[in-house]
Amino acid sequence: MHDSMSSGRIRKAPESFLKPDGIRTVMAEAKQGRRHFIRNAFAAAAAGAAGAHALAQSNPVPAEGGDPNILNLPEHTTGLGQSVATDGYGKPSKYESNVQRRQSPGLTQTTQASVSFAPLQSLFGIVTPSGLHFERHHQGWWDIDPSKHRLMVNGMVKAAKVFTMDEIMRLPSVSRFHFIECGANTGMEWGNVAVPTVQYTHGMLSCSEFTGVPLITLLELAGADLKNGKFVLAEGADGSSMTRTIPMDLIKSGEVLVAYGQNGEMLRPEQGYPLRLVVPGVQGVSWVKYLRRIEVGDMPYAAKDEAIHYVDLMPNGLHRQYSSIQECKSVVTTPSGGQVLLDKGFYNVSGLAWSGRGKIRHVDVSVDGGRNWRRARLESPVLSKALTRFNIDWVWDGKPAIIQSRATDETGYVQPTYKQLRAVRGTRSIYHNNAIQSWLVQESGEVKNVQLS
Amino acid sequence: MHDSMSSGRIRKAPESFLKPDGIRTVMAEAKQGRRHFIRNAFAAAAAGAAGAHALAQSNPVPAEGGDPNILNLPEHTTGLGQSVATDGYGKPSKYESNVQRRQSPGLTQTTQASVSFAPLQSLFGIVTPSGLHFERHHQGWWDIDPSKHRLMVNGMVKAAKVFTMDEIMRLPSVSRFHFIECGANTGMEWGNVAVPTVQYTHGMLSCSEFTGVPLITLLELAGADLKNGKFVLAEGADGSSMTRTIPMDLIKSGEVLVAYGQNGEMLRPEQGYPLRLVVPGVQGVSWVKYLRRIEVGDMPYAAKDEAIHYVDLMPNGLHRQYSSIQECKSVVTTPSGGQVLLDKGFYNVSGLAWSGRGKIRHVDVSVDGGRNWRRARLESPVLSKALTRFNIDWVWDGKPAIIQSRATDETGYVQPTYKQLRAVRGTRSIYHNNAIQSWLVQESGEVKNVQLS
Repeated sequence: MHDSMSSGRIRKAPESFLKPDGIRTVMAEAKQGRRHFIRNAFAAAAAGAAGAHALAQSNPVPAEGGDPNILNLPEHTTGLGQSVATDGYGKPSKYESNVQRRQSPGLTQTTQASVSFAPLQSLFGIVTPSGLHFERHHQGWWDIDPSKHRLMVNGMVKAAKVFTMDEIMRLPSVSRFHFIECGANTGMEWGNVAVPTVQYTHGMLSCSEFTGVPLITLLELAGADLKNGKFVLAEGADGSSMTRTIPMDLIKSGEVLVAYGQNGEMLRPEQGYPLRLVVPGVQGVSWVKYLRRIEVGDMPYAAKDEAIHYVDLMPNGLHRQYSSIQECKSVVTTPSGGQVLLDKGFYNVSGLAWSGRGKIRHVDVSVDGGRNWRRARLESPVLSKALTRFNIDWVWDGKPAIIQSRATDETGYVQPTYKQLRAVRGTRSIYHNNAIQSWLVQESGEVKNVQLS
Repeated sequence: MHDSMSSGRIRKAPESFLKPDGIRTVMAEAKQGRRHFIRNAFAAAAAGAAGAHALAQSNPVPAEGGDPNILNLPEHTTGLGQSVATDGYGKPSKYESNVQRRQSPGLTQTTQASVSFAPLQSLFGIVTPSGLHFERHHQGWWDIDPSKHRLMVNGMVKAAKVFTMDEIMRLPSVSRFHFIECGANTGMEWGNVAVPTVQYTHGMLSCSEFTGVPLITLLELAGADLKNGKFVLAEGADGSSMTRTIPMDLIKSGEVLVAYGQNGEMLRPEQGYPLRLVVPGVQGVSWVKYLRRIEVGDMPYAAKDEAIHYVDLMPNGLHRQYSSIQECKSVVTTPSGGQVLLDKGFYNVSGLAWSGRGKIRHVDVSVDGGRNWRRARLESPVLSKALTRFNIDWVWDGKPAIIQSRATDETGYVQPTYKQLRAVRGTRSIYHNNAIQSWLVQESGEVKNVQLS
């Protein structure tokens, strides 16, 4: 069901690698001491025959077995390369073509109302490249002409107001880094489905620098009743009729943005171009795409996507609604499911932590299934309601190991174990799973998703 | 010479817009009150005829002149959109296709030893999209196979050491945001050439989140003599034989990285894939691409690109060498040269500030050519040796205005005027121009590059 090849950068014959033969080939090579790696394990098989000449091709050393006075220089050292602006909008290396966001076949009935997952195992730092940002569409994506797009503000306002994109882009803007996580991220794990890779367990998660206008500015321009108006309804222009209730308190904090910029450029079409609501800390479904209308009201709207979807079925049989803040969570992305450790020795364990309530205070990492914990290094900047990258040293002794991360946010909240989470939430949820993830490193070096009870 | 159309998002007939007829058309439209904009001025001409129906096409209101009971809904509201993962690596909207990095025709003799400039007038926040990152190649760019690439550390070390990419990627990594600026950025302004747009005046500037291993870690692994080794030579694998001296003190600070990651993914080929030196605060030429060798030595190497290039011709006729720190600098990107203000009224003035010495402390903005200054808002995070985005409100009264920004960094250094800079540096430099930039807003609304004496 899942394509776990998305974790490396191989171009050729990825299937063969996942089969026992392929793995044996790479393992045998590793034991010869020619390669030691982890996230790029897949390159080895492809490189294979070329390996012996690798050094000669990259460094000016004598050709192997040849005249030591003749340097065997690679073409890129002797030749003339490609021109600037070969592409006015560049692309990744051809050697990275396997790093893709991927749909999970069979997860949804149609490809328009579906998900593509970000390849977290291949990503660095906290910025998600816009081309690899996860997607969640309810009725497909559109590339809407911005000169025709409008945003209406109505409801409890002095006079309904319609904004063009140009009017919005003249207003005072802010730029801020925030994560966005789908409320259903890690949802299959509620059913104890050991989804094989971190791309599919946690890949409905991305982080970007957003630029836009605080929604409160637009409400003020429309003369909104900020005293009696307790909620707004945000409505998208696509066919899914996406509508979500946003509490006015969040908006008054200035955090909620009507965004047009993402990672330095205009929003991508799959992310709601030309206008999207950014609701920091809140699940992705509330970040309404193709935003066309904001209605000010005095009570929650109980829209379809908050009354019957994105709700939590509790142990007592009742549904919990409006549970939209994404609680503190973390995951180790390297090593993670589907990757292979090809030798004992030193590894950099790396992962992501985030909280819908503010900043990450610290992250602890265990390599023995939660018995002992060590504090990880947090990369700077550590920002509120943004991803935080953590790293920690680890020397693998070749024996089975269970790797976990546990984040604590600035409110003091600690990411729960599955046992703790299920004690409150039971077993029948789909959404809002923030439990500690466990990766089993087997003696073979293969990494597997396991759920500790 | 320059294509100043790069500041908008028009798809059709950009040439006609820059001609007097095109400008008159848009100005006339603006006076009818149908549009108010600045950076997207160019969209107006294309939208033209469609304008009257714009609202109807985006919001469910009665069709103009038709039966008020029949809603004129756009296709994106009634239809089924495109599938997830239509592209495993997404692209910008087709309406943004004019936002490109661009070569400056005629600036260099060959397109392989040339520059493409980032479209700063169209960018938001501080992250430069990797596809729009400026390029500077000395002998073209290459897409080097990472499985064959090696990094050698030699010179004053216990034993020369060769690293594979996989070995490097297993080591403890860090992720940090930094700007990179070519030492020749804004170079044409030394000759008082009023380059028309900010893309060409300041577009050899970008900012990314870099991930890699501190160079000091690799030196320690090779047993480098950190007492007597005062400098390293960094050497690239491409045909330009790029070699630069880096002071050991910078490396010991832990700031200098051997980077493989940029903005969450692997470096792009144009940026030195698979390995580039990151030297925060220092001019771009020292960020050696396709990094293949680090040699530890006890004196500067006087390589060709530091002895005869990237030097400053001073008023006394001597060349200043090794002036590699990029001093504090800023520029207003909106409004900027080539853009048109189509009406009086409110504008958000936005720009970028940076310093090779640390953080930006504050940015002041003048709209009267430097007589009066107001303090701009700095977007967070404000990071050391990274771009900082600033914004400030402005109400244009329709009269000529000269817009400037002046940055101050955490050392207290204040960005100089041209008069101050020329008093020290004279008129014959090419590199290291960090003077205050002036944009003249004419009564017509057209924005022009002017240099105040």
